[in-house]
Amino acid sequence: MGITRVPGLLYGGDYNPEQWPEHVWAEDARLMAEAGVNLVTVGVFSWARLEPEPGVYRLDGLARVVDLLWEHGVAVDLATATASPPAWFVREHPEALPVTADGVRLEFGSRQHYCPSSPVFRAATVALAEQVATRFAGHPALAMWHISNEYGDHITECFCEVSAADFRRWLAERYGDVETLNHAWGTDFWSQRYGSFAEVEPPRTAPGPGNPTQALDWRRFSSDALLACYQAEKDVLDRLSPGVPVTTNFMSMMKHLDYWAWAAREDVVSDDAYPDPADPNAHITAAMNYDLMRSLGGGKPWLLLEQAPSAVSWRDVNIPKTDAQYRLWSLQTVARGADGVMHFQWRASRAGAEKWHSAMLPHAGTASRGWRRTLRMGADLKALAPVAGSRGTAKVAIMLDWDSWWAAEFDAEQHPSNLVRVRELIRAWYGALWAANIACDFVPADADLGGYRAVLAPNLYLATAATAASVTSYVDAGGTFATGFFSGLVDEHDHLHDGAYPGAFRDLLGVTVDEFWPLHDGEHVGLRTADGEEFTGGVWRDHLDTTTAETIASYADGPLDGRPAVTRNAFGAGAAWYLSTLPDAAGLAGVLGRALREAGVEPVGAAPAGVELCRRGGYLFVLNHGDRPAEFTVPGGRALDLLSGEQLGDRVLLGPAEVRCLAPAPSTTETTP
Amino acid sequence: MGITRVPGLLYGGDYNPEQWPEHVWAEDARLMAEAGVNLVTVGVFSWARLEPEPGVYRLDGLARVVDLLWEHGVAVDLATATASPPAWFVREHPEALPVTADGVRLEFGSRQHYCPSSPVFRAATVALAEQVATRFAGHPALAMWHISNEYGDHITECFCEVSAADFRRWLAERYGDVETLNHAWGTDFWSQRYGSFAEVEPPRTAPGPGNPTQALDWRRFSSDALLACYQAEKDVLDRLSPGVPVTTNFMSMMKHLDYWAWAAREDVVSDDAYPDPADPNAHITAAMNYDLMRSLGGGKPWLLLEQAPSAVSWRDVNIPKTDAQYRLWSLQTVARGADGVMHFQWRASRAGAEKWHSAMLPHAGTASRGWRRTLRMGADLKALAPVAGSRGTAKVAIMLDWDSWWAAEFDAEQHPSNLVRVRELIRAWYGALWAANIACDFVPADADLGGYRAVLAPNLYLATAATAASVTSYVDAGGTFATGFFSGLVDEHDHLHDGAYPGAFRDLLGVTVDEFWPLHDGEHVGLRTADGEEFTGGVWRDHLDTTTAETIASYADGPLDGRPAVTRNAFGAGAAWYLSTLPDAAGLAGVLGRALREAGVEPVGAAPAGVELCRRGGYLFVLNHGDRPAEFTVPGGRALDLLSGEQLGDRVLLGPAEVRCLAPAPSTTETTP
Amino acid sequence: MGITRVPGLLYGGDYNPEQWPEHVWAEDARLMAEAGVNLVTVGVFSWARLEPEPGVYRLDGLARVVDLLWEHGVAVDLATATASPPAWFVREHPEALPVTADGVRLEFGSRQHYCPSSPVFRAATVALAEQVATRFAGHPALAMWHISNEYGDHITECFCEVSAADFRRWLAERYGDVETLNHAWGTDFWSQRYGSFAEVEPPRTAPGPGNPTQALDWRRFSSDALLACYQAEKDVLDRLSPGVPVTTNFMSMMKHLDYWAWAAREDVVSDDAYPDPADPNAHITAAMNYDLMRSLGGGKPWLLLEQAPSAVSWRDVNIPKTDAQYRLWSLQTVARGADGVMHFQWRASRAGAEKWHSAMLPHAGTASRGWRRTLRMGADLKALAPVAGSRGTAKVAIMLDWDSWWAAEFDAEQHPSNLVRVRELIRAWYGALWAANIACDFVPADADLGGYRAVLAPNLYLATAATAASVTSYVDAGGTFATGFFSGLVDEHDHLHDGAYPGAFRDLLGVTVDEFWPLHDGEHVGLRTADGEEFTGGVWRDHLDTTTAETIASYADGPLDGRPAVTRNAFGAGAAWYLSTLPDAAGLAGVLGRALREAGVEPVGAAPAGVELCRRGGYLFVLNHGDRPAEFTVPGGRALDLLSGEQLGDRVLLGPAEVRCLAPAPSTTETTP
Repeated sequence: MGITRVPGLLYGGDYNPEQWPEHVWAEDARLMAEAGVNLVTVGVFSWARLEPEPGVYRLDGLARVVDLLWEHGVAVDLATATASPPAWFVREHPEALPVTADGVRLEFGSRQHYCPSSPVFRAATVALAEQVATRFAGHPALAMWHISNEYGDHITECFCEVSAADFRRWLAERYGDVETLNHAWGTDFWSQRYGSFAEVEPPRTAPGPGNPTQALDWRRFSSDALLACYQAEKDVLDRLSPGVPVTTNFMSMMKHLDYWAWAAREDVVSDDAYPDPADPNAHITAAMNYDLMRSLGGGKPWLLLEQAPSAVSWRDVNIPKTDAQYRLWSLQTVARGADGVMHFQWRASRAGAEKWHSAMLPHAGTASRGWRRTLRMGADLKALAPVAGSRGTAKVAIMLDWDSWWAAEFDAEQHPSNLVRVRELIRAWYGALWAANIACDFVPADADLGGYRAVLAPNLYLATAATAASVTSYVDAGGTFATGFFSGLVDEHDHLHDGAYPGAFRDLLGVTVDEFWPLHDGEHVGLRTADGEEFTGGVWRDHLDTTTAETIASYADGPLDGRPAVTRNAFGAGAAWYLSTLPDAAGLAGVLGRALREAGVEPVGAAPAGVELCRRGGYLFVLNHGDRPAEFTVPGGRALDLLSGEQLGDRVLLGPAEVRCLAPAPSTTETTP
Repeated sequence: MGITRVPGLLYGGDYNPEQWPEHVWAEDARLMAEAGVNLVTVGVFSWARLEPEPGVYRLDGLARVVDLLWEHGVAVDLATATASPPAWFVREHPEALPVTADGVRLEFGSRQHYCPSSPVFRAATVALAEQVATRFAGHPALAMWHISNEYGDHITECFCEVSAADFRRWLAERYGDVETLNHAWGTDFWSQRYGSFAEVEPPRTAPGPGNPTQALDWRRFSSDALLACYQAEKDVLDRLSPGVPVTTNFMSMMKHLDYWAWAAREDVVSDDAYPDPADPNAHITAAMNYDLMRSLGGGKPWLLLEQAPSAVSWRDVNIPKTDAQYRLWSLQTVARGADGVMHFQWRASRAGAEKWHSAMLPHAGTASRGWRRTLRMGADLKALAPVAGSRGTAKVAIMLDWDSWWAAEFDAEQHPSNLVRVRELIRAWYGALWAANIACDFVPADADLGGYRAVLAPNLYLATAATAASVTSYVDAGGTFATGFFSGLVDEHDHLHDGAYPGAFRDLLGVTVDEFWPLHDGEHVGLRTADGEEFTGGVWRDHLDTTTAETIASYADGPLDGRPAVTRNAFGAGAAWYLSTLPDAAGLAGVLGRALREAGVEPVGAAPAGVELCRRGGYLFVLNHGDRPAEFTVPGGRALDLLSGEQLGDRVLLGPAEVRCLAPAPSTTETTP
Repeated sequence: MGITRVPGLLYGGDYNPEQWPEHVWAEDARLMAEAGVNLVTVGVFSWARLEPEPGVYRLDGLARVVDLLWEHGVAVDLATATASPPAWFVREHPEALPVTADGVRLEFGSRQHYCPSSPVFRAATVALAEQVATRFAGHPALAMWHISNEYGDHITECFCEVSAADFRRWLAERYGDVETLNHAWGTDFWSQRYGSFAEVEPPRTAPGPGNPTQALDWRRFSSDALLACYQAEKDVLDRLSPGVPVTTNFMSMMKHLDYWAWAAREDVVSDDAYPDPADPNAHITAAMNYDLMRSLGGGKPWLLLEQAPSAVSWRDVNIPKTDAQYRLWSLQTVARGADGVMHFQWRASRAGAEKWHSAMLPHAGTASRGWRRTLRMGADLKALAPVAGSRGTAKVAIMLDWDSWWAAEFDAEQHPSNLVRVRELIRAWYGALWAANIACDFVPADADLGGYRAVLAPNLYLATAATAASVTSYVDAGGTFATGFFSGLVDEHDHLHDGAYPGAFRDLLGVTVDEFWPLHDGEHVGLRTADGEEFTGGVWRDHLDTTTAETIASYADGPLDGRPAVTRNAFGAGAAWYLSTLPDAAGLAGVLGRALREAGVEPVGAAPAGVELCRRGGYLFVLNHGDRPAEFTVPGGRALDLLSGEQLGDRVLLGPAEVRCLAPAPSTTETTP
């Protein structure tokens, strides 16, 4: 069973019928069927059409589209259409437009022009969702609900008076009384004490640096405010259309929203993924994002809800994808757990802000390279249908905690260094796993770690006592834990833990840090391991003393020359590693490789450099990201390639950008139910 | 007959008598006469003096100045004095101050502090213009009217409520009904439909990218709003002072104002030209601007209304001109069709924002290098008097269309690349003509092209069906057309033309473009012609297929290696060339040189590199921009040099920065009446 | 007698007891005593605690802290606690929040959130100061009063309506009538005349460049507005607590406040000094700032009121100090006239914006390198106690005038170059003195120069007639004067002086400047002296003619090749030097070295490069800033090192970062009473 009741893998894209005269709809439906499309997302930006005047709903046109699609075998991921309120709404409720930290009220004319805390906005979305749900709940084409669109893409926060009141309400709920808030925010610093919640405002632009805990709570609140918008619509759908899965499209590893909290409210996790063809390592960052999506859903198949068939239109310079790159990157999402490949958008627009964005059906129509690419992907996904529903497994977890991320970055101008970028640190560590074909999950800070042989926290600036206890008992019971610099330092209020650094992890890691010696942009420090391996580190350095830990690598130059840099502490039945700098790729591969080997972690398989291996259920995906042919040894000596239908022998030669999906031959494929 | 009734070439500058006590006026008039000055611009910033209180006009001081000047033989380009409203106006009408896209109302204290749509501002300017025109209409010194100053230098748009209402009025006139606007703006994208014009606002800062057609119409409207300010005053002058030519000073090839529309309302086209002495190619850009000025006036002589005698004061670092550079660059304007050389300003200010700007009479007074320079220019222009009124001709035209420029750049963050700069593309193509001493005009998109052997459109992103038809029939009838990448793609609403790229020009060019492959900043691609010439391209690449065209040059590296890059399509009796990248200077010289040779275009003459040749009537200007002496062969074997009065033989050696103006010897000089 | 009644040198830091539970206070007092701390600054940010509700004062907690400190021998620099108004104040008086030039009202949540002209803010500070002064005036622990904190750190100006009215009042006082203002501001330029003071506004964001004299007066007013805040509190303290010295902490050589005017209202000049450990020349800039502090107090000992024990938290990347660096830099302040070494802050915060700032008592507590450093400094300062009260002398003065600095930089976008940075020019010239161990003072433009052998004005763009007369008669009487490019040009209204450049100094310098040829960023010009020394110049060039001056160095390349660059004019009994560019370090050393030698200026002593010598009374400080050992010859052949207690012979070897304080052995040390 897949993520929707549509069998096999999902294939399609955003479809915006209001941009086209009705006669084009018929052509679209026919071409979709020809391409093997089985699902399209409809109505994301249809509000102005569906509710042309306040309270006047016109759903017939949408119904004709859905009927037509269904006649051609195309199901719908139906939007509640609330992503962008119409002009009339904004003119009736100007106070629902969002406001910046400088007090600028943003204007209609783009999209996502709403204050997340606005009661009139939420009421209008709920009313529209009710109309849409009522009309389409029983429609046979309905496969999934799609709420709003890319929450937080433009508006991650609003500083208006309505939001301020909502923030005070949220704070009152969190803290109960203002003295508790005063303590949490450390308001005795700089004379910032509040006499009542009524005195509190959002962190608008101020004369100098603001209160760090206020900034942290503001991020928590802002994520929650958008989530409340989502939840209000979700409640409607659950009530009026029970059993139909609901999603909203995520934006990969996005900083502003706590996706752990969001994913818990979703039936299907879906992602909009836009790797940059101009980035030679885009596929590694992409893999990381896909593993996150799989993890957000607890391992369930997820859905690639948007990708570009070729170029996007919003970077400074937008390079197209080659045909091979498009195929490789699309199938990589399936390899990493996606049960469908969807696109923005089906038919290229002739007007509007995204008319230069590529589409499944290009401006040139079917006599184009783009259309041939679309046809081939339909065939590929059909061939991979047996994979649907299957899952991967991992023995390594990367801990990702939005609270910690926010605390690390939203007050960075008052930190030892403002060059600490949590996503980049995670990406660097992830890269070492990717290169070694070691499968990994992402976990939240409060996860049960018991199932993992190793847990990595590239940065965990904020670690609550509970997190510290969880990690400590995990290691004590035999787990391996590795963390990086500037971790374990503060609690949930961004207050320092007691005693020497790194507070919460000091005993576990068996080290103390006397002072931080961050590195300037582009500056590097040399390191050397006991057995003479040399590499460099960036971003950070610690003046570090070992207490119970052993030194794995030491600084080899600069003011800390000879002092410990990377350490390992035997703790209980396990081990805890500390990296006081960000090693280069070779250094990370060496250090993490050793830690994971000791922990008994095994790679998915052996492959040449640049060849990615992913296991889903009984299937093994082999993806050659290199620009040269690569020879791969087939496990077990034989396999069926689902994509080509070929029976493979001992070895298979993959051309550049080639993909194989190996099923154990000649057995029939198995799927996880 | 010159552009005014002042005989010969005009010489002078801005004169701001209110900055000086009256006894200085007499010295000024005497020194002007000594320097050969015959025209000064008076009163540009005199509003606060002429109307010290609302409705109270004090013109006697100005009259004394004008009388005094005329007594010394100096005529006036008289300003309506409306460039900057006084403080009392702003305090009485704070709503007439301009507002930014962020809602900041800009303050008094600089200049040009007005909302172009403000009715009270327009009324006040009309009232002042009436007073000035009534008083001075019959004054013998009056040679020309000067309205406002450098429209659009600081304020190119205003986002206030008054402007918003004016924008809605403009839109209602353009579109008639809101459904037509909805279609033109493509408002079905992102749910942007309007129910009435009343819902439309200016494109103020929004959460994300705005509507591209709204942005385009906003630019059209904003140019028109400023033009309406000009026209309101022009109507007064035409009524009260018929027959006296009217101008407003342009700012060279300025992006924000559609100078084709503006020039049509002017009696004399005038320009403020500020080439940067620190730019080694400033003279080429300058030549381009001067050709544009000549073209805006339909070939008539134009007027250099402002240049700096030496350094300006508004760049980061302001380098003076050397004496030779000043002379060379001043006479270049005459060579390119100017009938006068005017300056900002006559006497250097002792206070205020531009006191560090150079002047004809420097701070040090007449005992200065600057004053000697001023005297010599007076003599030079007197020697060149016979040139006045003569015209040049050209067989090549460059198409410049502001609609297309705006569409190409004001939505660039949603384009395949935001590095497309129309002026830079035109400048690059123009540079190839300049280097070959090929005369050229600029033409609007709706021009009659019949008189040209070749028409170049370095970029024409927006090409209406009418433009496409005009260009196509021009080529069909034997013309040569060449255009660059990202051209012919959208119509007047910024909607894509049907079918494969490049829509409007597809058949004419005999190519289709599958996808765009823009280049990153600083990135270059190699090219090679059939006969082995190699050069590089920047900014852009196309995945290009020829249908009926032949390939002139192909890509020689990168993902498009071997594919067509530059093509030529025989079409009817003519030829259409397409350049899918921006070739380097040598590449452009080769490609355009070949196209123009085939079209039968001939250069003005032969000259060493760096020597500029310009023909005006029977005169040939020879300007050596190189830093070494250059030998020039005199056409016909003999000539009179108007500047030196020398009779020249076969050959003449020009020192660095030297200028000659050759009249066919020994005939008397002829001028166009 | 020291600067307070606390004997010896002062040692301590900011103490913020409200951040800690009361039981920590006792530990703090005990540890302070252990470290030799004898003064702490208390209450800087206590307003919200001391006045928790409007008019309700709670001073008992503060009194318990002060009592406890005094019991442990620690005196207090007691704050009036007015640096940051509480939340209730801001909510009651939102109009007292400061407003930016764009009209953004800045929010509570940081610090210094007040409009300097706000009457309610000033009244509230006076009321609080009265309460604190009344309570603590007679307390035995009270050693000094500390008003507010780092005036101008965040808020240097406010553009609100209240400030606008205060600005108009200030202008009316300065100019008497509006015609005088019109003349001073040169409002005839750009039609800016005012009909009354009521029409004048602050220089808010305008369409283009503003009026330079308005900008200059705005800076004068803004410095005065903050000074009025200070003075209002000072009046209270002088009345209620006579005899107790009052200070406010300066921020080194700060551009926005005219510290000459401020220092005249202080009893003790104090400084917050934060040299960057990542800057290899930070100690030279620091020395300059310390000489300024000494000079601001007329040569009296000053107080280092804040420095960081190690890293700060507000740079992009914050490097700690090494132990040696901390000691060297701390004792350098004493060497340059400080009578105390204070820190921000005593105990590291666990929360708030500056929790990552280093402290005397680090997060790790007493088991830390930081604490050992704190103990050692206590011992060092005790050993140096005899130095307290002694003074240095100098025969060279650097002229620093804030009016000129403001005029040079706040209108720079309309200057020949906007790359002129007055502080950097002073720093460059100062560096030549520092390297030669030549002691120098700073003096204001209206100083009596009689006591100096040489006066240097690296830049004095604005020089009033009085300043010009003072400098001229100083040179005439035998003094040596040297000044740099872009000096002597404008008067107090930023109007040009008459005649050729450099107006006010033309005759004195014996040169005229025809035009300025500023250099682009990173561009350099070659120079050569008559005897063949070569060096380079940056920032600027002049087209210079000598009238009576001799040429010391000429340009050696570029458009001014061969023309004079550095000149010397014998004038009366003295000499006046002009540097038309900024020579590199070697060039400056050569030119200034020659000028000072001729003037009979002698260095403090002879020392290897990188070794700093400072004399205070009978003491000679020797500081090795190099990273190698340096040998120093002891003047007189023997001396006592106060720091080590060692009797030194002929020579002493200083290790890297080592410091000696030589007292003439075996005499007892003498102090200035």
